[in-house]
Amino acid sequence: MALIVQKFGGSSVANAERVNNVADIVAKTYNDGNDVVVVVSAQGDTTDDLLAKAKEINPKGSKRELDQLLCAGEEISIALLAMALQARRIPAISLLGWQAGFYASSAYTSARIHKVDTERVRSELDKNKVVVVAGFQGINKYDDVTTFGRGGSDTSAVALAASLNADRCQFWKDVRGIYTTDPRKVKGARKLNEITYDEMLELAVLGAQVLNNRSVEMAKKYRVQLEVRSSLEPEIPGTIVKEVAKVEKMLIRGVTKDSHTARISVLRLPDEPGVAFQLFQALAAKHINVDIILQSVGRDNTKDITFTVTDTEAELAKEAVLETFENIDDSNIKIATDVTKVSIVGAGMESHPGTAARMFEALYSAGINISMISTSEIKISVLVKTKDADRAVEAVHDAFFPVAK
Amino acid sequence: MALIVQKFGGSSVANAERVNNVADIVAKTYNDGNDVVVVVSAQGDTTDDLLAKAKEINPKGSKRELDQLLCAGEEISIALLAMALQARRIPAISLLGWQAGFYASSAYTSARIHKVDTERVRSELDKNKVVVVAGFQGINKYDDVTTFGRGGSDTSAVALAASLNADRCQFWKDVRGIYTTDPRKVKGARKLNEITYDEMLELAVLGAQVLNNRSVEMAKKYRVQLEVRSSLEPEIPGTIVKEVAKVEKMLIRGVTKDSHTARISVLRLPDEPGVAFQLFQALAAKHINVDIILQSVGRDNTKDITFTVTDTEAELAKEAVLETFENIDDSNIKIATDVTKVSIVGAGMESHPGTAARMFEALYSAGINISMISTSEIKISVLVKTKDADRAVEAVHDAFFPVAK
Repeated sequence: MALIVQKFGGSSVANAERVNNVADIVAKTYNDGNDVVVVVSAQGDTTDDLLAKAKEINPKGSKRELDQLLCAGEEISIALLAMALQARRIPAISLLGWQAGFYASSAYTSARIHKVDTERVRSELDKNKVVVVAGFQGINKYDDVTTFGRGGSDTSAVALAASLNADRCQFWKDVRGIYTTDPRKVKGARKLNEITYDEMLELAVLGAQVLNNRSVEMAKKYRVQLEVRSSLEPEIPGTIVKEVAKVEKMLIRGVTKDSHTARISVLRLPDEPGVAFQLFQALAAKHINVDIILQSVGRDNTKDITFTVTDTEAELAKEAVLETFENIDDSNIKIATDVTKVSIVGAGMESHPGTAARMFEALYSAGINISMISTSEIKISVLVKTKDADRAVEAVHDAFFPVAK
Repeated sequence: MALIVQKFGGSSVANAERVNNVADIVAKTYNDGNDVVVVVSAQGDTTDDLLAKAKEINPKGSKRELDQLLCAGEEISIALLAMALQARRIPAISLLGWQAGFYASSAYTSARIHKVDTERVRSELDKNKVVVVAGFQGINKYDDVTTFGRGGSDTSAVALAASLNADRCQFWKDVRGIYTTDPRKVKGARKLNEITYDEMLELAVLGAQVLNNRSVEMAKKYRVQLEVRSSLEPEIPGTIVKEVAKVEKMLIRGVTKDSHTARISVLRLPDEPGVAFQLFQALAAKHINVDIILQSVGRDNTKDITFTVTDTEAELAKEAVLETFENIDDSNIKIATDVTKVSIVGAGMESHPGTAARMFEALYSAGINISMISTSEIKISVLVKTKDADRAVEAVHDAFFPVAK
């Protein structure tokens, strides 16, 4: 008997049939003798429908009212799921964010969870009830409803699991778990049985967006064991995310790509102290996240700095550069958006110095040129042309996960 | 400058256009220098849509979950109206039932309001805000959401007006006010400028359902001045409901009919003490409301008792009678559902003994037979055949409100 938090997304409860499917999964977990807390998002398109209604009436309504409006979405889904469980003779009760004790900051539409007061949830569990909690929402110090932004329901689930000291927090998705690379693109992609928090974070950052970062970071901080598994194939075990993962004889965990990348080169900057500082301070002031950075060796009293940003922020970054350096104009700035970042992630690579060489060799053998390289303790990223990206992922994946012949 | 509570029903906020119309009315009231609290119901068909969703998943879900579900309806409408006001540069804030301090009983789907803690509403009014409050909903002692049943939003409005000591509670409807009789049926129907609470109560009970009883009773108890007026024609003054109404040279306030009536005759009951008591106790035990009662003079040691109930409860009443009296069978019970109750209401009739005679004369002149009569201090009701009902209303109305020639 364990205490399990189960999270289901909006598409999992989009209509009556799917709500019933979720209820079956929850009922089985409960009937197996577990205490169960369920966190759900709003049904399918509810949030978009509500946003459309708001936009029609006032595209610039206050964020507070937007949050008040959106919270109706989970109110509907939790009540329906509780009723579906009741139809299966499972005692169930639904709780809104505030009823479940979610106290959050006042940053409407993107609030942070301060605390989860689990008294009510625990007392319902003590009555042998399945507790269905509204994800995405809480209240602030004014007793006003706030929401947690994109992926907020995942964060709700992990915060609740942490506060309840739950044995596991399960994310029921439309994928079977975490894969070594995108299974829709690479035939040899393998499902991982286990993965560490750090590896998961790198994978998420690198574009394999199965769980949002905030929730994985929180899980790591509070040592909440996560599991990603499929609500469409509930009998198949998923991927466990925890502090130390079994190595499974794998040097790396996975290969990912991120094509929403732009490379910006600033040419002929003065070769003097403080230039890089000025440049990246200017970018930070505009809230632009910089990823890979590469600085050339100085020559003729000038140097070049190349960096990558999210492609949507490339123009903003260019403006920042132009505003910062008097002697830099358009002709000094080159932007490339036809680039993709391909990365390998794995906590095991630290102790295997040959990992990078193996990756570069695979790319070389496939005739793919590397324009930038970045490494961290558990990650190696390279920048390639977008047209080569899928071949690059496949070549690297085959090098580390040879397909059995 | 006054404190005004304005109540708008679900059809008044059914879509963006109507929400904007309501916002215009509220904005005008606010810009005229008044403090304004608005109570709204869920948009148009929202409640029915939510009920259909619930029914599809579990037709017998708990009432608690049903209430949780339904409350999403007002959450949507209050946020949208607040945004519509913000678009008109009116500072506005929406509050859910619990945020507005509505503490209620635990009778899910038909809770009673225990108390309205107005602290939050007052503090928002002090900030010069228009406060948009969700009608129909509150919380119970368990911090669970409860709803107030049919017409519950009207009750919310009056309770809030009473607790705030508001100067007036306005009900914005799709009618111009209270009429002497149904203006769609009788050409000479007149709008009343004023009416007393008691008269309003009798009219409501008798089927002129403009406001629900509970809210009028509460208004009477706490001396909340009500006003019924048209949201489609906001420039036209409505009808004021208050303790003492100007008589306007009218003997009666109005003529109503109620066709949802059944007459039940129980023949040859034993003519002995306690029989009537047994009969009506049996009906009360089944929660059947009895309206007019008529007992024949005893003969041959038997007597007949005739009474009226709501037509949907006629069969249930028959069962109760059969269960109660051993020597009564089917042949002793006659049910007539083709009957309609026609009533005149008016606080003035007490001091005018000729009122009843005038009513009966009007019916006699129109050749309409009366099968039962019931009178109270401010009301006279007669039972007629349903096919004669419209003619009866018109004849009585013409007798008291002669059409100007």
